[in-house]
Amino acid sequence: MKETVVYEKAMEVRDYEADIQGIVNNANYLHYFEHTRNEYLRHKGFDFVELHHRGIDTVVARADIRFRQSLHPSDRFVCRLAVRKEGVRFIFRQTIVREGDNAVCAEGETTVVCLINGRLGDCEELSEAFHSDFYAVK
Amino acid sequence: MKETVVYEKAMEVRDYEADIQGIVNNANYLHYFEHTRNEYLRHKGFDFVELHHRGIDTVVARADIRFRQSLHPSDRFVCRLAVRKEGVRFIFRQTIVREGDNAVCAEGETTVVCLINGRLGDCEELSEAFHSDFYAVK
Amino acid sequence: MKETVVYEKAMEVRDYEADIQGIVNNANYLHYFEHTRNEYLRHKGFDFVELHHRGIDTVVARADIRFRQSLHPSDRFVCRLAVRKEGVRFIFRQTIVREGDNAVCAEGETTVVCLINGRLGDCEELSEAFHSDFYAVK
Amino acid sequence: MKETVVYEKAMEVRDYEADIQGIVNNANYLHYFEHTRNEYLRHKGFDFVELHHRGIDTVVARADIRFRQSLHPSDRFVCRLAVRKEGVRFIFRQTIVREGDNAVCAEGETTVVCLINGRLGDCEELSEAFHSDFYAVK
Repeated sequence: MKETVVYEKAMEVRDYEADIQGIVNNANYLHYFEHTRNEYLRHKGFDFVELHHRGIDTVVARADIRFRQSLHPSDRFVCRLAVRKEGVRFIFRQTIVREGDNAVCAEGETTVVCLINGRLGDCEELSEAFHSDFYAVK
Repeated sequence: MKETVVYEKAMEVRDYEADIQGIVNNANYLHYFEHTRNEYLRHKGFDFVELHHRGIDTVVARADIRFRQSLHPSDRFVCRLAVRKEGVRFIFRQTIVREGDNAVCAEGETTVVCLINGRLGDCEELSEAFHSDFYAVK
Repeated sequence: MKETVVYEKAMEVRDYEADIQGIVNNANYLHYFEHTRNEYLRHKGFDFVELHHRGIDTVVARADIRFRQSLHPSDRFVCRLAVRKEGVRFIFRQTIVREGDNAVCAEGETTVVCLINGRLGDCEELSEAFHSDFYAVK
Repeated sequence: MKETVVYEKAMEVRDYEADIQGIVNNANYLHYFEHTRNEYLRHKGFDFVELHHRGIDTVVARADIRFRQSLHPSDRFVCRLAVRKEGVRFIFRQTIVREGDNAVCAEGETTVVCLINGRLGDCEELSEAFHSDFYAVK
């Protein structure tokens, strides 16, 4: 997905994220993806807390993640992000690529919708801000 | 999926699982699903820690979850589980149903594979133990 | 501390709370303590979310916890709570006692203060509600 | 404690670490402290996973933390570390200092002991490695 990446965030595994098997627990990948999306929001001039206080909540409607290789304590990685829009839904394609060996450890699509005062809506300000970043589905 | 449910686990939201939006953070649903799968394993006579020490690791290859309604602090819910096998992969269908209004808050499929001494393998003892529970795909 | 216990909450370890050493990561004990305090609040007729929306935040000023024995995956335990007041501070003494062998796995004091519209204050409604439960320091 | 600091680690709040009150949940400070101690270990040439596999577990016997100011989503901070030894116990003094306003958000002492093949012991290799860093208690 390299050609469509519009944002990336470097992160590192924190040791407590590994579980008894010695590998990062799967739930943390959702955290990594979410944190990267929020940083992308900030990069675009938004703040998810400020949006929340204005009655706009971005919520995840679906997450579909394939786990390719396990991250381990002290691994560093980048989380890459591409985005498109389908109806009122923002589709984020994200990958986690480990530093060192460039292994794709996880990749997935997260569908995000906006609740405006608690009701599903089309968030125009986010659409405008992201618009130039949208990738085309071939 | 009621007709195929072979196990269910009652749980409750712990308040710290809610984030700044006041709803349970999505990553926690993976925790709820995982905990329920592990309890199912125990119910079948296995222990994922003991398996790990014998060189058998059950790892998630894919998680595809739809988030229907948000859980909130103090909500109680049951996590239901159905299972089938496709090749070497175990496919767990799981739903989270809130107590009180019976709302399906999340539903998803988690694909689990076994690493036997670090290599993808077909875990016969798990297959045998789960066999009578497998549901048919129509 | 048995004679002063005014509330207790039964819980179970969720497997993902164990880390690479196979024992529950220490941070989770703060979660167990917090969840028990919040359940105690509910038992007294309060809701920490509703309090938050009315401008009253209960925040932890200090946590001093001794870890005696490690909890492991699938352990069940009760978290016991005693409370007293010192000035504007609520002091919660809490212990975690494992089911089965009654081992005290952790014990500690958590100091909680109230922020009323962001400023340290004396929360009268909580004081009144907890008053009959306060234990005396000998 | 500036004069005794022997290691510091820069980190940032991840948004999901904030709870419903909009501030970082207290348990995460234990995570920040732990991650910093583990990085210090690495900096000294050790790896807590490799130690674990050799039968040496560093475990927290006590954590005493004062929370001064709350961290918020997107805050950056450094976690500073000083260390001394008392008997077989390593005492880590740690502070979390926010970038920007240099506010001390949390400070605490964590007592760490070594279990060698499951029994409390005096870990000579860690003592030697840390020795030149020990600060004197006045």
